[in-house]
Amino acid sequence: MLLLADPARYAESRRSELHAVADRLLDGRQFVLGGMVKEFELAFASFIGTEHCVTVASGTDAIEIALRALGCEGKEVLVVANAGGYSTISCLAIGATPIFVDIEKSSLLVSVSSLIDLVSEQTGAIVITHLFGLAVDCAEIDKLVRVKLGRSVPIVEDCAQAHGAKVGKIRVGAQAMIACFSFYPTKNLGALGDGGAITTNDDALAERVIHLRQYGWTQRYFQGVSGGRNSRLDELQAGFLTVFLRDLDERNDKRRKIVKKYVENGASVVQGGFANSEKYVAHLAVCTVKDRDILINKFDEAGISTGVHYPYLDSEFATTQHLVKQLLPNSWTARDKIVTLPCFPEMTSEEIGLVCSTISQCQQHFETT
Amino acid sequence: MLLLADPARYAESRRSELHAVADRLLDGRQFVLGGMVKEFELAFASFIGTEHCVTVASGTDAIEIALRALGCEGKEVLVVANAGGYSTISCLAIGATPIFVDIEKSSLLVSVSSLIDLVSEQTGAIVITHLFGLAVDCAEIDKLVRVKLGRSVPIVEDCAQAHGAKVGKIRVGAQAMIACFSFYPTKNLGALGDGGAITTNDDALAERVIHLRQYGWTQRYFQGVSGGRNSRLDELQAGFLTVFLRDLDERNDKRRKIVKKYVENGASVVQGGFANSEKYVAHLAVCTVKDRDILINKFDEAGISTGVHYPYLDSEFATTQHLVKQLLPNSWTARDKIVTLPCFPEMTSEEIGLVCSTISQCQQHFETT
Repeated sequence: MLLLADPARYAESRRSELHAVADRLLDGRQFVLGGMVKEFELAFASFIGTEHCVTVASGTDAIEIALRALGCEGKEVLVVANAGGYSTISCLAIGATPIFVDIEKSSLLVSVSSLIDLVSEQTGAIVITHLFGLAVDCAEIDKLVRVKLGRSVPIVEDCAQAHGAKVGKIRVGAQAMIACFSFYPTKNLGALGDGGAITTNDDALAERVIHLRQYGWTQRYFQGVSGGRNSRLDELQAGFLTVFLRDLDERNDKRRKIVKKYVENGASVVQGGFANSEKYVAHLAVCTVKDRDILINKFDEAGISTGVHYPYLDSEFATTQHLVKQLLPNSWTARDKIVTLPCFPEMTSEEIGLVCSTISQCQQHFETT
Repeated sequence: MLLLADPARYAESRRSELHAVADRLLDGRQFVLGGMVKEFELAFASFIGTEHCVTVASGTDAIEIALRALGCEGKEVLVVANAGGYSTISCLAIGATPIFVDIEKSSLLVSVSSLIDLVSEQTGAIVITHLFGLAVDCAEIDKLVRVKLGRSVPIVEDCAQAHGAKVGKIRVGAQAMIACFSFYPTKNLGALGDGGAITTNDDALAERVIHLRQYGWTQRYFQGVSGGRNSRLDELQAGFLTVFLRDLDERNDKRRKIVKKYVENGASVVQGGFANSEKYVAHLAVCTVKDRDILINKFDEAGISTGVHYPYLDSEFATTQHLVKQLLPNSWTARDKIVTLPCFPEMTSEEIGLVCSTISQCQQHFETT
């Protein structure tokens, strides 16, 4: 069965380097926040183009800590409802109220008009998710917010699915006030376990994040900042990520080429029109389809895994229903029409060919692009 | 300089086994909550003697998640103030109110009379920290709580410093309703990064913990339980811990023998009277001293690191001061008189001898035992 993502293939190709990282850990003798974390933070900040990178234990922790660093406790935070729940969980963890923004039909990314409609004096932050690998232009959103409110509202970029994507020459993660990354294994840049990071150009925010990721300590054992937790990236994962970062742009290119072939064979990949653009890093090949169950079944018969990203909206749980103020028509429509096809850089040309021929055979089940 | 703890020595002695774990990770191809996590959870539950072990990302997360699983949000939680802040941070993270209990002068462990004084109908849970490696008898506390309130209050064992210690034949972690472990590298059972676990015999609690450690998911992507986060133990760390668990009892024995020698040479190790007992696993050799600065300086001159566990009480931060209802006289007195000497199983006999001779030379600075 062809998996949706198979990070073990890439890891396998780096086996000897991973053993070298393990040796570096033992030789370095510092197992928490040591030299390999520092080295990766410098390398990743340099890659993204920010002054600071502070690693944490996961992408969800990154959003939670970024929102805390911005002082969003008790405030409203704008989020989309179709991004798997991570931003909403982070809001709820700090006592902020997620306000659900609808999405664009075409890209499944945040609807800027819905967002501008909902932004208000109560908004503590706006989480912008570069969903499925396509970068949202945060500068444009900031401009429109300033027109409405006469001031900016902090934007938190959620880059968990878009490592390396660019708006113009600027990478996601360097577009707004603060940005969050996940290094979950299947991500474009993935560790071999959980991991996350926050990037920012703001010195004071970076310092707050450094305190918050370690108990709110302003010095060892002294809780100078409230809301701190334990959220640290492992040395080993940092070492692996430094190795993997070198190939990121090249592997993103391979992802785009796969999506391009899917589009050529008739798949309605929702962001497929960007397959030639660095704005897009093809994290997930999400398509819109007419009858999802039939299509999933056809692919299953062909030995191809499919997924749904995501089967639920953040706004439909018992824990969040009472917060819903909007109807979110586009989010609901998309929820039942999306299906994700395999897309990862280590797919063989045979596997890509198999997916393409299955797409061709299922032509009538895809939405017209 | 002799370090307080040096987990790299032990890791070094297991280098080839650690590489084998890395190979198992790559061969197993499942990088999050895979076979090595499952294997460790089974092995650790069996070692502790509980039905369930659920691993999480850190010891602090373990306490937070255990308190959530018990439904302590908005309730009072009894904690000691001299255990480094981790329980208090966990309370604050879930919106529970930490109520600070004083300690016994002799052991620096929770004062049972202070605890019984403070337990009330508002108490959602009692965190019992087996501090520095000495087990508290939770059954005794439960008995006294039932005498006062006519019912039990859930006890959360904080076993971060007492892996393997026993009360009678029962290990800490199996004494109360739910228990929390940290696998920070310097712990008696330490990973090569962050890690934690929760043990319990209660099926429903274990199930809640399994949901809470992964976004509150009751099925993939479905947030059926509120208060969930991402808190997972890495596969690699689980693999290392399975290897290290085999030596735990033997290494605890070495720790006790070191403390015994310190006591014989005149150090006032506060829990040193238990150096022949399995109730004690000698996590930290904490002594009470007359003039801490002089003693620290003497040890420093001899090339021996010392520490203070801990330099602050949980009750003295801006974030917690308003919660203090008690004077905590014993906690405050101990705070300024404690000093920690090196104690780890891989100390050489020369190093132990050096500490012992320095103790002898500093005799007058230790408190009379």
